[in-house]
Amino acid sequence: MKNNQLEDSRILSDQLDKYVDRVVLVAGFVHKKRILGGITFINLRDRHGLIQIVVEEKAEVEKLRGLQIGTVLEVKGTVFKEVRAPGGYEIHQPEIKVIVAIENEPPIEIDKPLSHKSENLDTLFDYRAIGLRNINEANIFRVRASLLREIRNYLIEHDFIEINTPKLVGGAAEGGAEVFKLDYFGKEATLAQSPQLYKQIMVGVFERVFEIGPAFRAELSATTRHVSEVTMLDVEIGFINEHNDVLNLIQDMLYSVLVKVYDKENKILKQLNAPELILTKEFPRFTMAEIHEMYQKNTKVDVSQELDLTPDEEKWICDYAKKKLNCEAVFATGLPQSKMKFYHMKGDNNQTRSADLLFRGIEISTVPQREHRYEVLVEQMKLAGVDPDSSGFASYVSAFKYGLPPHGGFGFGIDRLTEKVIGLHNVKEAILFPRDINRLAP
Amino acid sequence: MKNNQLEDSRILSDQLDKYVDRVVLVAGFVHKKRILGGITFINLRDRHGLIQIVVEEKAEVEKLRGLQIGTVLEVKGTVFKEVRAPGGYEIHQPEIKVIVAIENEPPIEIDKPLSHKSENLDTLFDYRAIGLRNINEANIFRVRASLLREIRNYLIEHDFIEINTPKLVGGAAEGGAEVFKLDYFGKEATLAQSPQLYKQIMVGVFERVFEIGPAFRAELSATTRHVSEVTMLDVEIGFINEHNDVLNLIQDMLYSVLVKVYDKENKILKQLNAPELILTKEFPRFTMAEIHEMYQKNTKVDVSQELDLTPDEEKWICDYAKKKLNCEAVFATGLPQSKMKFYHMKGDNNQTRSADLLFRGIEISTVPQREHRYEVLVEQMKLAGVDPDSSGFASYVSAFKYGLPPHGGFGFGIDRLTEKVIGLHNVKEAILFPRDINRLAP
Repeated sequence: MKNNQLEDSRILSDQLDKYVDRVVLVAGFVHKKRILGGITFINLRDRHGLIQIVVEEKAEVEKLRGLQIGTVLEVKGTVFKEVRAPGGYEIHQPEIKVIVAIENEPPIEIDKPLSHKSENLDTLFDYRAIGLRNINEANIFRVRASLLREIRNYLIEHDFIEINTPKLVGGAAEGGAEVFKLDYFGKEATLAQSPQLYKQIMVGVFERVFEIGPAFRAELSATTRHVSEVTMLDVEIGFINEHNDVLNLIQDMLYSVLVKVYDKENKILKQLNAPELILTKEFPRFTMAEIHEMYQKNTKVDVSQELDLTPDEEKWICDYAKKKLNCEAVFATGLPQSKMKFYHMKGDNNQTRSADLLFRGIEISTVPQREHRYEVLVEQMKLAGVDPDSSGFASYVSAFKYGLPPHGGFGFGIDRLTEKVIGLHNVKEAILFPRDINRLAP
Repeated sequence: MKNNQLEDSRILSDQLDKYVDRVVLVAGFVHKKRILGGITFINLRDRHGLIQIVVEEKAEVEKLRGLQIGTVLEVKGTVFKEVRAPGGYEIHQPEIKVIVAIENEPPIEIDKPLSHKSENLDTLFDYRAIGLRNINEANIFRVRASLLREIRNYLIEHDFIEINTPKLVGGAAEGGAEVFKLDYFGKEATLAQSPQLYKQIMVGVFERVFEIGPAFRAELSATTRHVSEVTMLDVEIGFINEHNDVLNLIQDMLYSVLVKVYDKENKILKQLNAPELILTKEFPRFTMAEIHEMYQKNTKVDVSQELDLTPDEEKWICDYAKKKLNCEAVFATGLPQSKMKFYHMKGDNNQTRSADLLFRGIEISTVPQREHRYEVLVEQMKLAGVDPDSSGFASYVSAFKYGLPPHGGFGFGIDRLTEKVIGLHNVKEAILFPRDINRLAP
């Protein structure tokens, strides 16, 4: 970028190798400070990593006296190769300019490999504004940003149009119970739990749409899975022939995105001890009945009375597919109609035309064909206790009355995907400032 | 994409030129139907445009009897060149398969060049789910998606990390009055008016961040400018030398994005009668005092008592710069401190270190350097009546206490930018499902 004055002359931590024996200007935050026999070693953190600075001259050492982690410096000095320094290079004979002097010690340590344990998240989030300066904490959100980028790139390349739909809606759009309500100029509004109705309407406009945005759920549970605000990817595609087209879309997207993210963020993922990616282009597909049978045969646990997969079965089948079929993503097909939403399409044998996508032990998305036939949809809404004539649904229903093609779609949490990609233990670890029943700050 | 069955064989409207004299499969919505002397002409709408289908054979004409706009068809037929057809090609000897038969006439016309007038927006939004099927209405949102894509591409190329910050916050984060409040598990929460505090915190982590997401304002006014839910771009950059670095960033970004969008969406923008883009790489910069003086000299209107620019002055200076300086974007610098927020940095002469960016007659963004010095910030908060120790601000203030570099940033509405790029008259025309004091549906 033109005209950004500091950037015109500043070198970043991962560019030092190009400047050996030359004088460069670097800038960043003091990330670590050690004093050894009159020499001060500074690890300076910039947006690409760490730079070791060796301060020997007395006047320069003096400038740093009493200054703590977080102090902002500009440093001019000569680049030397040094295998023991982070990145393999360090700066000697520095001329230091203190931009912001920090004299308060930070409330938590930020220079350890991992800043938090999953069992002590409250401390993590209480000091989140500072704790994120830990390089590995920050790296979680680099991976997340990378997932967002590659998902969008994939969808845009495949002719999907990005939309933004309202988060303030009249009434609980999908008839759910756990919604946040608020006063909207004297009327009752709710916070959208998903863009479900809007993305289906938009199939009649663009055929293929996606949205990435917040969704809100007044979850009363306090578990590792529950948060009240999530970042959702929502995708909808029209002119499909059958529900397998939707399965193929999410399969192709996820394969493409994960391979790219693992490639581009390879170094970061290793630092985070993320599991290796084990994925085939086609994900194994099993019916629920097959999974029940295989699980029961292998574990001797009786699941014959379960309609849905148990959490243990989800883990088991992903593990099985990973070991035997070289793929840690699995489709569970043949879902029972008892699990069905009114906008899903029924299939044969009391099943729906959909599948659950499991990845690394948990369900990350349900992937259904929608019911696009006006009369059938209205019937299903009534059976579900949803009034198709109510103001919250009139526009939705009109999209079908005036023609929607066979279509399907899916949604999943970006938070959840980030959690599973990195191998975190709690979805909140993948959210910058999470919200749950006990937490509304920072 | 592999395995999407229809897409493997389907041809889109803008690919017909490659298939002259060959039999192709197309699919879409009946967009227009005319009967002339026993021949039925169908305009079929797919996601890339219109396909004219000439139906002469009696059995095929019969299939279409009574079917209305919105009917979903798959058509096999032979491609012919025909200059009078939309796109220059049409399909003869069709074999028609009715996928979804629609017998209800749509409540509004969708095959006109423009589906709405700015003075009749209520009808537009009441029937929004159908009205968006008008190709020009939809094109507004193609331009919008294009702006989103190019903005993200620019920022990612320039090393900005995408973040998602919470929309449920405790207390009115910026101390504003017009906030939506809700019950959050027994506590009071508000809907975020902007990610201001979070993006500044994140400068301490990534130096450069951006977010695109909803922001909520309980606007009591019902004007062409006011909506209660907007889609905001927010950008923050650290390690600046002075506030001109921030001006240069938004200038460079906007120039790059607009040139690309005008190039890629050239055809659509012409169909929408969007104004031609008149922009120089460097936007003219005038102080408020200079604008007051120039305006007064040229119009004889006395604005000497105005602290801020009047709406007429904003229009006038953009017009002036467009005609005389070949640029319809202008910075108004030297803003008075009376306009300042607590997180802005003061400058000399009772001014702030910031500017307003005007584009095509209105302010689209305020572009300030932030106050990054802990003690000064706390002082400014107190003066503004904001308690730095309160739970809503404690984390924010801690980011400064433990070190933030000089930084600045800006935010603007994607809705507003889309409106101005296309030359619409009301920001709501650039929002799929707008929300205002009178509208919470669809």
